[in-house]
Amino acid sequence: VVTFSDGRCGVVVRLGDYVLDLARADIEPDLCGRDSLAGLMAGGRLGEVRQRAAELLSGAARPALLHPIGEVTAHLPFAVGDFTDFYSSLHHATNLGRLLRPGGAPLLPNWRQLPVGYHGRAGTVVVSGTPVTRPRGLVARGEERATLQPSAALDFELEMGFVIGRGGTTIAPDEADHHVVGAVLLNDWSARDVQAFEYQPLGPHLAKSFATTISPWLVTLDALAPFLVEPPPQEPPPDPYLQARRPWGLDLGLEVELNGTSITRTTFASMYWTFAQQLAHLTVNGATVRPGDLIGSGTVSGAGPGEWGSLMEISQNGQETFTLTDGTTRTFLEDGDTVTLRGGAGGNGTPRIGFGECTGRITPAAKRGT
Amino acid sequence: VVTFSDGRCGVVVRLGDYVLDLARADIEPDLCGRDSLAGLMAGGRLGEVRQRAAELLSGAARPALLHPIGEVTAHLPFAVGDFTDFYSSLHHATNLGRLLRPGGAPLLPNWRQLPVGYHGRAGTVVVSGTPVTRPRGLVARGEERATLQPSAALDFELEMGFVIGRGGTTIAPDEADHHVVGAVLLNDWSARDVQAFEYQPLGPHLAKSFATTISPWLVTLDALAPFLVEPPPQEPPPDPYLQARRPWGLDLGLEVELNGTSITRTTFASMYWTFAQQLAHLTVNGATVRPGDLIGSGTVSGAGPGEWGSLMEISQNGQETFTLTDGTTRTFLEDGDTVTLRGGAGGNGTPRIGFGECTGRITPAAKRGT
Repeated sequence: VVTFSDGRCGVVVRLGDYVLDLARADIEPDLCGRDSLAGLMAGGRLGEVRQRAAELLSGAARPALLHPIGEVTAHLPFAVGDFTDFYSSLHHATNLGRLLRPGGAPLLPNWRQLPVGYHGRAGTVVVSGTPVTRPRGLVARGEERATLQPSAALDFELEMGFVIGRGGTTIAPDEADHHVVGAVLLNDWSARDVQAFEYQPLGPHLAKSFATTISPWLVTLDALAPFLVEPPPQEPPPDPYLQARRPWGLDLGLEVELNGTSITRTTFASMYWTFAQQLAHLTVNGATVRPGDLIGSGTVSGAGPGEWGSLMEISQNGQETFTLTDGTTRTFLEDGDTVTLRGGAGGNGTPRIGFGECTGRITPAAKRGT
Repeated sequence: VVTFSDGRCGVVVRLGDYVLDLARADIEPDLCGRDSLAGLMAGGRLGEVRQRAAELLSGAARPALLHPIGEVTAHLPFAVGDFTDFYSSLHHATNLGRLLRPGGAPLLPNWRQLPVGYHGRAGTVVVSGTPVTRPRGLVARGEERATLQPSAALDFELEMGFVIGRGGTTIAPDEADHHVVGAVLLNDWSARDVQAFEYQPLGPHLAKSFATTISPWLVTLDALAPFLVEPPPQEPPPDPYLQARRPWGLDLGLEVELNGTSITRTTFASMYWTFAQQLAHLTVNGATVRPGDLIGSGTVSGAGPGEWGSLMEISQNGQETFTLTDGTTRTFLEDGDTVTLRGGAGGNGTPRIGFGECTGRITPAAKRGT
């Protein structure tokens, strides 16, 4: 969903550095606003739109239908219903367990039995490019009394987001493609020092509610189908309601850049719990999902250094600095820093699918008397 | 927001056992659907509507404007944005701390420093009268492996819900009445056995996501203004961002009936953290609130038996039975049980304000192969 340079807005299909204007191509009427995609998603027509756009573009598309990407402004592509965020990378959960409970078992007893997750704030999901203001929160720093201060441990989390196009309940994993319409990149910004003080016993709250950034280009599940792969083996096997026959892992390459320095390269195929299992879990208790609900995968981390999807892991909870190509060092994010997530699939003989960018720049904490 | 017996729908003001039809009274046009109140709330016009309705009714209202309450069907009065639920009763948190961490300090170190809370599922907030299906979930029962089964520890939670009418961020406690438009009764149904297995480290999730019931009658903050009182003293004093000069406690009487037996009577005035402090906390990190956001107070419990707002407390986590007037006993809820919350204020020389009923009947867990 974009605004064109003439101020008109509408739904487009992105192809490389161009977008196809669906209204001018007579594929869809001109739709504006955050609900633009809702009808397309709920009606299950995104696949058809993509097909018609592809047909048009395989011929000699009229240049008037195409706009350079630099001439449009992309918006949040759908109104977010409920945002649920998971914790489904074995490497990430193990890394955090080691950092937060040294000497103990890195994984809690429930981790291999269900996709652990929580509800996030839907109203603060923003589109790539939106500045992220450093949050303030109660931080204890080893003291008994916490005080309100700007977070000094601001982090990103490299994730994928899966978008519900058709509602339902008690959805089996192998029915996931009837309900999930596509995927975006997702950065679940986190204030680790705020989280450390607040999170017992009801989980993270203000540490993650200030902003979550998603990429504006919804890649349909149809387009991702060639990249569905078997996820890693699950031991012990989960309860039958979480078992799938079809492969729901996704072979996507993911990358994080901090101020232009590539700091993480990893693959989504390493995720322990799949989005199909997450959806099955979310709805097994009778809860419904609605079009526009967003499911965060949880931070994507690979096994080794260079594959970690958060600064919490890269800096070992702030204990180790790392160096950017400009010679400066970091543990957590500084004001002015820009984090960019990128992801894609294929390219070796298969069509290349890209997710575009999911980027945000940190602006200083708001100055405000209390 | 109701449907009349002739199938027409619209916005009404409730007065005792009658509702005033705002469209027929030429106060508001006929509005239908879950967004009916959104415009009124966001425009800050609910107070004006209430005033005009009161004027009309203090005269000789035309009988055609009034419908007996039994002839209308009430709907969810607004589309819920984000649902945030708190844990702000000192007695409730202490009781749960004693049950879940016997021998330890009942309150965790953060409890007196901030209103502990978490995000709940907005899409499963339902209106009073909607049946509540017993959820299934992974339950461990002392075993290492949890299995999917209907919850055997289904509970209610007696709460108030506060509704945002005007959006904003970094809202000081004393600005709460610029943003909160009114209140409803709220039952945060909870599956304690599911919660016990899933909640580490990210908090309760499926144990509370299957249903949350609210009363259909939004009582405006204007109407509640005479009942604002000083909350209990807070020791230690909270961080300045949580300090208010005006009184934001609410002197409401609350009652829970189980199958017609009154099992709890308590007062909302005992709540440690006020809705004004909860709103200030929610937004201090820069997070925004939107019209339709719903803030749950947390379970309301008084100091002694008979004043507890959950079966977890009444049955001491299932260890003690209690007896209903029909002679049957309970620990947690059984299929067919009906829980009804009621609340109100005034009546001794001041106008009586009632919240109506917030009720739900438990239906058996869905039979479904896994």
